[in-house]
Order: sequence, then C-alpha cells, then structure tokens
Amino acid sequence: MAESANPGSRRDQRGWAPPDGRRLSAVGETGLLAALVGLAAADGRLAIGPGDDAAVWELDGRALAITTDSLVERVDFLPSFQSPWEVGVKAWSAAASDLAAMGFGADLGVACLICSPDTFEGTVLGIQEGMVAAARRDGALLAGGDVSSTDGPLTIAVTVLGSGPPGQAVRLAGALPGDVVAVTGCLGGAAAALHLLQTGRVPPESWRLRLVAPAARLAEGQRLRAAGAHAMTDLSDGLLVDASRLAAASSCQLDLWADRLPLERDLEHFFPGESLQLGAAGGEDYELLVCLPESLASDLNLLSEGVGISVIGTVCRGAGVRLLEHPAGPEVPLSARGFRHF
Amino acid sequence: MAESANPGSRRDQRGWAPPDGRRLSAVGETGLLAALVGLAAADGRLAIGPGDDAAVWELDGRALAITTDSLVERVDFLPSFQSPWEVGVKAWSAAASDLAAMGFGADLGVACLICSPDTFEGTVLGIQEGMVAAARRDGALLAGGDVSSTDGPLTIAVTVLGSGPPGQAVRLAGALPGDVVAVTGCLGGAAAALHLLQTGRVPPESWRLRLVAPAARLAEGQRLRAAGAHAMTDLSDGLLVDASRLAAASSCQLDLWADRLPLERDLEHFFPGESLQLGAAGGEDYELLVCLPESLASDLNLLSEGVGISVIGTVCRGAGVRLLEHPAGPEVPLSARGFRHF
Repeated sequence: MAESANPGSRRDQRGWAPPDGRRLSAVGETGLLAALVGLAAADGRLAIGPGDDAAVWELDGRALAITTDSLVERVDFLPSFQSPWEVGVKAWSAAASDLAAMGFGADLGVACLICSPDTFEGTVLGIQEGMVAAARRDGALLAGGDVSSTDGPLTIAVTVLGSGPPGQAVRLAGALPGDVVAVTGCLGGAAAALHLLQTGRVPPESWRLRLVAPAARLAEGQRLRAAGAHAMTDLSDGLLVDASRLAAASSCQLDLWADRLPLERDLEHFFPGESLQLGAAGGEDYELLVCLPESLASDLNLLSEGVGISVIGTVCRGAGVRLLEHPAGPEVPLSARGFRHF
Repeated sequence: MAESANPGSRRDQRGWAPPDGRRLSAVGETGLLAALVGLAAADGRLAIGPGDDAAVWELDGRALAITTDSLVERVDFLPSFQSPWEVGVKAWSAAASDLAAMGFGADLGVACLICSPDTFEGTVLGIQEGMVAAARRDGALLAGGDVSSTDGPLTIAVTVLGSGPPGQAVRLAGALPGDVVAVTGCLGGAAAALHLLQTGRVPPESWRLRLVAPAARLAEGQRLRAAGAHAMTDLSDGLLVDASRLAAASSCQLDLWADRLPLERDLEHFFPGESLQLGAAGGEDYELLVCLPESLASDLNLLSEGVGISVIGTVCRGAGVRLLEHPAGPEVPLSARGFRHF
C-alpha cells in the first residue's frame, strides 16, 4: 500500500498511547462493538453485514453465513474445571451457535490454536479432538487451522461457515410489536455450574456439561427459520444482555415474564432466592431467543422437538428490555444484567 | 453430547498435565501440525482438506477456499515498531496470503480481536481500520468479527474466504521432477527490517512496510494458477522452511540456487555476508513460491506483472530442500533455517 494511504506509519502511533485516550474498560463492550461495526460498514455485496450474529454472503443462489468466536484461558475456561476435549467442544459450539441464531446449519470450520511453547502436546491434541467431535455432531467438519505461539493464556479462535437458502437468514432486527418472545431449552444451568465450581462445590453433571461442553441449537434454529421467525439470537452473554441487543436492532421493546422463564430444575434448591438472577442474567446457555408471529405460538413445541421451547414474553413498541414478575406484573429488580467483556 | 462419548470429562483431565507429557517446545511445529491435521482428517466432502495453505470446499459448481491465521503481540508484532493500523493490515494480509497460495482471490473475512480491558480504544479501532483498508485493497471486505478480553497479549485471528473455479486450486502437493521453481518479488526485506529495528537502527521505509504492512500476492497467485502452476505456497516462515513443506507434500526434492535468489537491493550493503541468510531463511516476505512446468518459464514475467518473478531452482526426485551456490554448485551452509513457533 502506498505510504501516503497509510495513516499508521511510524510517525503516527497514537493509537497505542493516545494522550487523551480512553481505555476499553471505559468505552464498554457495546460502544466498542458499535464503533468496530461502523468502521467495517458493508457495501452492497453482503446480504447481512457486520453487527449481526453472523455475516451472510449470497453467491450463485446460495447464502453462506460466516462467524467467528474465541475462547481465552481464565476468561472463558479454566483448566481445573474442564478437560481439553471439553474446551474444544465449547470453542466449536460457541461459534456454531451464532449460525444457529441465523437459522443456518454448520458446514465447516477452521480454528486458530494459540498457546505457549510449554503447553503439553496432550492439551492441544485434546482440544483438537473436542473440536472435531463437536463439528461431527453438528454434521460439519474441521477443515483446517493454524497454530501460533504466545507468552499469554491459551486462546482458541474458531470460524464456522454454513450454507442455507438465500434471503431467509433470521436477523437480530425484525421483531415486530405483537410478536411472542420464546426461548429454547432451559436457562441458568451454565451460570449455576460456574458459581458452584468457583466456590468449590460439585455441580450436577448435566449443568457442568452445559458450561464446559455446550451444544449449538442448529436443528432448532433451522426449524424456527423455516417456520417464519422474525428475529433470533443466541444466549451467550445472558438473556437480558442478548435480549437488549435484539430489542435495539429491532427498534422495539421486549417485555419478558419472570414466571415463564424455563429455569433449570433444582436451580432454586441450589441457589435459594437467586435462581431468577441466574436464569435471566447468567450467560453461556447457548439457547436461542426468538421472536415470532403470535400465530406460530401454538406450534412451538413441534418446532423444537427434544429441547422444548417456552413463550417468555412479548414484543411491544418502545425500547429496551423489561423483566416483569408476570405478564401484567411489576418490574423485577436484578443486581446484574449479564456478562460483558469490557 | 452424551457423557459416554465424552473422553474429556472431569475424570480425565490428563491433557493439561500428563505424567509423561511432552511440551510443544519438544514436539516442534512440524510434528504438532502433522498430529493436528491427522485428527482433523477430512472426509470426502472437502476438495482440499487440512494441511494445505487453505481448505477448499466445492458447492454448486463453485470452489470456496478458507484459511485462518493469527498475530500475537510480542511474537508477531511489537507496538514500538508499527502502528495499530499497520498491525491490522498485516493481520489481514497474512491470512489472505494463504488464499493467494491456492491461486484464489479473497472475497470476505472475519476477525477476532482479543485484548485486555486496559487497551486503548484507539488501538483497537486503528487495527480494525487497517484490516478494512487491506481487505478493500484486495477487493474484499471485512464482514464481521468478535471482541474478547484477555489478561495476555493483544491477539488477532483473521479468517478469509475466497471463491474460485472448482477443481483448480493449486496445492502444496503437485510439484513434478523437471518443474522449475520460481518466486515472486524480492526476498529478505521483512527479516532485514526486523533485525535493524531490533538493534535500534532505522530500516529503509520500503523494508519496514514489507515487515509491518505486507500485501498478499492475490493477483499473481491467480495468474499463476490460470497458467497451470503445479504447486504453490506463500513465504511466511522463510523460503527454506516453506520450500521444505512443499517438497514433503509433493514427495520430491527442491534444489534452489543461491545465486538466483531475488534478494532485496542493498541487502548485502546493510548486512555484509549475511544477505543470503536473510533471503533464504528470513520469514514474512509473503511472496509466492511456485513450481511450474518448464514450458511456462519463458512467460514468467507476464505472469507476475509489477512485482516480477524469478526462477530460483528446479524440482528433482528425492526429498527435502538443498540450497546450492549455483545450478551445478556445492551446497551452501546456513546457520538457521527459518521461523517456527514451537
């Protein structure tokens, strides 16, 4: 690139230490993502550009959805809580879950494994085996990757690609006033397992597996797309955070009903008085949050055979997310709203 | 996934600290990559599976090539040597270069930005601007990405996707005895710039840009593919390392001729007696190494308009790479063979 077009020559390194610079901890994740999406603003070549769960590119009558996600040691996983194989499963599933949220399947993926030279070979091979197994479970395959060294934490970045029918990917935007809000499966298990492990207790194995080796809801997402879902996202950062993103993208308000949230069984037993907090704000459930026309509400259980699907609220005019005790009840106060990186 | 199918439950965490485990520093990069590729061994759905510069998936009469690569602070870049914008350019180009090596163009990419909460916002936005600019230069676009926090070094993982004609991707395997070996552009500039910067000297700006903001040879790769190249790879880890991979994949021997290597002008002036070492073993030139039928040798300069292309050797029966002083000369001793992560 010509130097004249290079605003980053060595004479301009202000980005590393700007005199009046803000740090990411002050900017916050929402602000940072908005700025990054703004810089990457797509031209007309993409059917769905940056800012959604996945980008969608249409080519020769096919739609291709692509998304990337990373797991970082100590931030997203701890060796004392899970095996390398499980870390590999989670790395794959966290990325594939973004394709599920578009209503697409996964076809193939690639992974960067970034680790220090004193990492044991068995760790890296275990992670790879986990990714390969999770890809196979999803009918996809691990097509390639790269290894790099670091002096920092073990880091895995997975990119997943899936194909689907053109013009039908389900966006974050698209919810309409009057839609019902529904969620697949159960909530709170992953967050509960993390709390228990962090305090030296043993979680039920089904909760631990939710946390350390989740499954992407690819089949459910495709059925919900085909049925006519208006908007969809996956629950990675917690119901309230992810619902807020969907509400903002759709320019509407989501009213959620606390008494309808499908909390994991026994959650209240393990966490008296805190189960709602865990279900509404705890992250990493990797379930799908979907807004659909009310006419589809009666068919919901057909749409998510196996894991089940629950109506948990309604879409109305306005902005943001309210968690109400029940459909006509008062708002529930919660102490934390979910996970954010910055 | 059923627990019975989970070899990594908490009862089997040996991968993190196996009693007789080898560390990656002992395994080495070549051994590690071979083991990882073995685990991911593709079924018939991929036209080109793990282990090549990129994986190729054929869908509805189109070939899609996908590849991923990462840059890690202190390993792959230093803030004191380059701006955030340049880091972004390099992150994109290093990944796109793998598509160039298949003879494909780049269409779109996604990026994971992994950084600590005390990173300046300007750093992250500068990197994003660099990636967007490099994508645009390559006729592609940055379609999305993800941010994550870490307590370690700033890390960027870029995945690039490109489409091309089916059945025509140029592999690492495919070189035939009698082929000529050629390389695009000039060698040694990036390694020379790094040595100068590390010793407090100021490199020529063109060398510094080779190091910090390289360009992927996408147009050259596509012309070489269309002309009938037998095998190709990009020079990221150094001519001798990358040539060895190509030789191994092609089950043949590459004889390279030291007197024909297109070393950067003035390299010998800056590094008396060491210019050959820098050109043959220095990494990050991101030029293309290609093996073609001898009948194409006379057209080579037409194939790489602009950057030029040089015949630097020949393919013969055997294994490995020999660097000869000249076509009939003795072997050249070199002290280092290139960059390896482990």
